Amino acid sequence: MVVVMDLSAGPEQVIAVQQRLEQCGFKIHIIRGVKRLVIGAVGDRRSVNSVGLKAMPGVEKVVPIMKPYKLVSRELKEESSLVKVKNTVIGGSSLAVIAGPCAVENREQLLTTARRVRRAGAGILRGGTFKPRTSPYSFQGLEVKGLELLAEASAETGLATVTEVVDKANLELALEYVDMVQVGARNMQNFRLLRAVGRSGKPVLLKRGLSATIEEWLMAAEYIVSEGNENVVLCERGIRTFESATRNTLDLSAVPLVKRLSHLPVIVDPSHATGDQRLVAPMARAAVAAGADGLLIEVHPEPCKALCDGPQSLTPEDFDSLMAEIRQVAAAVGRFVKGGTRSA
Amino acid sequence: MVVVMDLSAGPEQVIAVQQRLEQCGFKIHIIRGVKRLVIGAVGDRRSVNSVGLKAMPGVEKVVPIMKPYKLVSRELKEESSLVKVKNTVIGGSSLAVIAGPCAVENREQLLTTARRVRRAGAGILRGGTFKPRTSPYSFQGLEVKGLELLAEASAETGLATVTEVVDKANLELALEYVDMVQVGARNMQNFRLLRAVGRSGKPVLLKRGLSATIEEWLMAAEYIVSEGNENVVLCERGIRTFESATRNTLDLSAVPLVKRLSHLPVIVDPSHATGDQRLVAPMARAAVAAGADGLLIEVHPEPCKALCDGPQSLTPEDFDSLMAEIRQVAAAVGRFVKGGTRSA
Amino acid sequence: MVVVMDLSAGPEQVIAVQQRLEQCGFKIHIIRGVKRLVIGAVGDRRSVNSVGLKAMPGVEKVVPIMKPYKLVSRELKEESSLVKVKNTVIGGSSLAVIAGPCAVENREQLLTTARRVRRAGAGILRGGTFKPRTSPYSFQGLEVKGLELLAEASAETGLATVTEVVDKANLELALEYVDMVQVGARNMQNFRLLRAVGRSGKPVLLKRGLSATIEEWLMAAEYIVSEGNENVVLCERGIRTFESATRNTLDLSAVPLVKRLSHLPVIVDPSHATGDQRLVAPMARAAVAAGADGLLIEVHPEPCKALCDGPQSLTPEDFDSLMAEIRQVAAAVGRFVKGGTRSA
Amino acid sequence: MVVVMDLSAGPEQVIAVQQRLEQCGFKIHIIRGVKRLVIGAVGDRRSVNSVGLKAMPGVEKVVPIMKPYKLVSRELKEESSLVKVKNTVIGGSSLAVIAGPCAVENREQLLTTARRVRRAGAGILRGGTFKPRTSPYSFQGLEVKGLELLAEASAETGLATVTEVVDKANLELALEYVDMVQVGARNMQNFRLLRAVGRSGKPVLLKRGLSATIEEWLMAAEYIVSEGNENVVLCERGIRTFESATRNTLDLSAVPLVKRLSHLPVIVDPSHATGDQRLVAPMARAAVAAGADGLLIEVHPEPCKALCDGPQSLTPEDFDSLMAEIRQVAAAVGRFVKGGTRSA
Repeated sequence: MVVVMDLSAGPEQVIAVQQRLEQCGFKIHIIRGVKRLVIGAVGDRRSVNSVGLKAMPGVEKVVPIMKPYKLVSRELKEESSLVKVKNTVIGGSSLAVIAGPCAVENREQLLTTARRVRRAGAGILRGGTFKPRTSPYSFQGLEVKGLELLAEASAETGLATVTEVVDKANLELALEYVDMVQVGARNMQNFRLLRAVGRSGKPVLLKRGLSATIEEWLMAAEYIVSEGNENVVLCERGIRTFESATRNTLDLSAVPLVKRLSHLPVIVDPSHATGDQRLVAPMARAAVAAGADGLLIEVHPEPCKALCDGPQSLTPEDFDSLMAEIRQVAAAVGRFVKGGTRSA
Repeated sequence: MVVVMDLSAGPEQVIAVQQRLEQCGFKIHIIRGVKRLVIGAVGDRRSVNSVGLKAMPGVEKVVPIMKPYKLVSRELKEESSLVKVKNTVIGGSSLAVIAGPCAVENREQLLTTARRVRRAGAGILRGGTFKPRTSPYSFQGLEVKGLELLAEASAETGLATVTEVVDKANLELALEYVDMVQVGARNMQNFRLLRAVGRSGKPVLLKRGLSATIEEWLMAAEYIVSEGNENVVLCERGIRTFESATRNTLDLSAVPLVKRLSHLPVIVDPSHATGDQRLVAPMARAAVAAGADGLLIEVHPEPCKALCDGPQSLTPEDFDSLMAEIRQVAAAVGRFVKGGTRSA
Repeated sequence: MVVVMDLSAGPEQVIAVQQRLEQCGFKIHIIRGVKRLVIGAVGDRRSVNSVGLKAMPGVEKVVPIMKPYKLVSRELKEESSLVKVKNTVIGGSSLAVIAGPCAVENREQLLTTARRVRRAGAGILRGGTFKPRTSPYSFQGLEVKGLELLAEASAETGLATVTEVVDKANLELALEYVDMVQVGARNMQNFRLLRAVGRSGKPVLLKRGLSATIEEWLMAAEYIVSEGNENVVLCERGIRTFESATRNTLDLSAVPLVKRLSHLPVIVDPSHATGDQRLVAPMARAAVAAGADGLLIEVHPEPCKALCDGPQSLTPEDFDSLMAEIRQVAAAVGRFVKGGTRSA
Repeated sequence: MVVVMDLSAGPEQVIAVQQRLEQCGFKIHIIRGVKRLVIGAVGDRRSVNSVGLKAMPGVEKVVPIMKPYKLVSRELKEESSLVKVKNTVIGGSSLAVIAGPCAVENREQLLTTARRVRRAGAGILRGGTFKPRTSPYSFQGLEVKGLELLAEASAETGLATVTEVVDKANLELALEYVDMVQVGARNMQNFRLLRAVGRSGKPVLLKRGLSATIEEWLMAAEYIVSEGNENVVLCERGIRTFESATRNTLDLSAVPLVKRLSHLPVIVDPSHATGDQRLVAPMARAAVAAGADGLLIEVHPEPCKALCDGPQSLTPEDFDSLMAEIRQVAAAVGRFVKGGTRSA
């Protein structure tokens, strides 16, 4: 930690800061600049919060040097982590594809979709059953009925399944039915939920919050891992910016950056990021080229009848084409997509 | 709702959209522009989500006309709502002041603060006991012990109390001890929590999410009110922008805008917005001048020893000065601050 | 400057950085942290750009300590600067009010407005004659004809005048006719223009760019002052954020922050920031309460016939009311508005 | 255009709006909604600005239907435009690569770079000679001397050249020396400059402004094309968002979106967007996979000695590797990179 003192800071203020740091167990190095005095403090950053240095008279700013996360950091663990979800491994040289409807609506919709995405090469089926919706008047999900349908689709197709959970009660339910649980963008800093999925031990798909910095996203993962659950997959899904021509702005540079900072796998959701099915294929290709470990793609047999997020859903036919494109781009960057029926 | 068709949309695509809208109970008006065809659809917007029009071929964009919220809208209820929290009324011509430490740390800290802020004119005491923290390694709050201290401080000083709740379990606890519950910025779209505080009937302080639009914020309030609880106070606390010189960017224009759109009271939290105690007083004055119904101010007897958010906390002395300034500005805009011992 | 080395940086990399810094005239302090090595470098930051340290192997990040601006800094000059524009002083205890139409449209429009704003207490008349417009098909301004009208209005009313300049050619013209030149938000980093207005010696109204940080804004002012022109007035006019309910987000916390960092006066333009005349009065009051040294208000005799920015323009009657409110708030914060005919 | 009236709008207000629209040549369609009255107006949007409808009493909002740009729109011209710069065509099935240093520093630096990037397959050499720099104390470019070096490098290697221009004076100079001129992000709305490069007829590389929406970017291109110059290439280079882990946020979804809205070619600059050479290669691959027509890459023989933007510059060796990767990804999406010496 580096403490930069104000130009006008007097010696007694410098001494007060110094004493405070020493009380907290830091070792002190004073650097006298041309104009300003700077105090280097060596010690454990995690106690900084309690030090309140920035509130001390004469302090201009406090610059942390250590990263605030530890367990998810590549500095702690150099090799990339692999997360196994049933038969799909996320994070190796094969590319994981999660596909399915935004919301589970009924048996036929889900099973049709499951069969088609499996044939095209997806390894995991997604489907929301507890839907967090902006409006209290929108469709809120089938709840347990939806979980049962996911389990049925899984049994028939062999696909693994993932569904979003929004509180402890539905987490407990979901744990019985699905292979992976998703923490959505709006809950990325719902720390109670993070701890709960951490304790569950289940693979977790952790979406980046709409306005979360990369550091905050990794801190959210740290919450899960610090409960003993290392099976965390990060998912970039667009951030909120001034640009409203797309629903969100897909921050693809987060992919190579997070992979440098952390050992956790990172996948990309171009469907929610763009909100527009015409942009899903190019952004899915771009994600793979940028080094993503997988994709999350919304597929619906009849997008214009979807109860949720129709405009961004691909039809099964579109998804077939997308998968063909993805295989090409994956090959160009030394990766491959397992599975799928060749004829798809 | 207005549906704008693509330049290249053929007649069969127009007919398909028309049929779809009619099936959903809308009445149709076709407008042929110079180049583009536009379909005006008259009906209930709340069914729009299920219509999936944007996913239909030939549709360029869908423009909603009705506002998505209803119960919180000033169109439904013209006169401004008043929310009563013990002896303090939020929303009338008097200005409500909520003050206290970010986190309840111990008995002495809380009681000292309570006495001082009461003397200076605050009506409600704040204090966090279930702290949502970015890092799992930071102080997470005293939990029930903190609630007991809030109750004790209230009993001694007569101040009402407010504390943040983050899930149903601590909401249930908090309901027994405090007069108002806060839903924090990170939980503004935790819809389960919104429904739960809605069912509780307690006054709710609903903070705006870091990246929430004003419409989303009002929709979050709609969740609470739609459960039958009209005691909602909105709190602007800064939004996330590219500017990092302040912690967040306090969006004060939200105050007069929200007061035009909604009948709910709106208060401002300059402490969290700026993250810098030196900016708290000017922004508190500005909030009052902009028409805010109240303020939320962090006060700590020893900011540089605070376990949380010290840099933005005022000392009790600073708070005395602030209150004096606030009284002046309030008077200039036709409002006043009740209470406080003159000598403060 | 503090250079943080990578965890994996080897001793030869540390030595290379050290040598590089020494070559550039920095004195070196090595701090060995628990995990990381940090190099404190004492010297002149302005040579840092040429050092390219961040590109050296083993360097994780470079943290500047000194501020990049100098002449505009309050560290260089403690007392607040006053900028005199004809009879109006911007920056003292009186509040400067600049008012007038977005664009000069014709003689009657301008003179009517000038008489009314003068009577209400404005000291400076604004009016655009070289309009930077997003669309090449929009009204682009009266150019020289507009300057002549501004001069006529000034002669009749005694008001000082300000107009926006967008390149050297119209700057030269404007210098003959007006008392102050404005550099608009879109040109805040048009460095050629900044140098040119710097060399002109005229008072300059420097608007903050839509996406400019406070540091970049002060650097733009530094360009002007470094050419020998100290008559710079900063103008906050809203920044671009995700919120689209207002045209921009007025960043009022920039006012007290800039006044702490710099000795230059700061005024606020609530008209462009909000884009909505119903929000102009509350945000003008808030600006004064936050400590702004003045206001820039758009006034038009018939806003709904304005060729530019009608929706945010006040009528002369609205402006009279606004000025009455402003006088009250100014008094509450120890300031006053000079001039104006009492009966206004 | 659709005008949405306020709930409380009276009949006389509706009539006033109607009359105003008819005066401006619009044909009127009244739609009576469940609660609100909506007026559809058919006519030429370009006169809307002068109508000032939003300022009329009783008007809640005005929704434009037509796009504000015309000449650059794909609706006007369906086939994609090709822009020829010496021997390089931007916009066809071959991928255009522009490479070179941020700033021309000296003869050896530029010639070394030119030879290497040519060998690796670049078609156009970039090099700044008039540098817009945030700080007046930073290196401002070699000016004419730099242009001469670009011409020399072009003569020797056969590469086309591009340089940034910041005002009319240096545009006139640059026109004599280079094959393409660049309008930088900070000048994207410098409308005088846009008109000037429009009149010049030279190919123009138009960078997206840091906080420019896609619509504003296309409007800037419309300025150039409306002067008769159709040789415009758009360049996405990152937008400003809350995320500070990268210099800007590369908005890759702008690539497929702009290609749908406009017939102009779009290239991507991952160097300025990320500000970090370690992210350049993945984002360059992603850009190609997303459908970009070309890349702009900073290359410097000794990045850590660069006078400008060293941290984001590739070495010639890195650039060789990048080009090999790019060829693979291009092939995967049905494109190819012309030129380059196989052995590179």
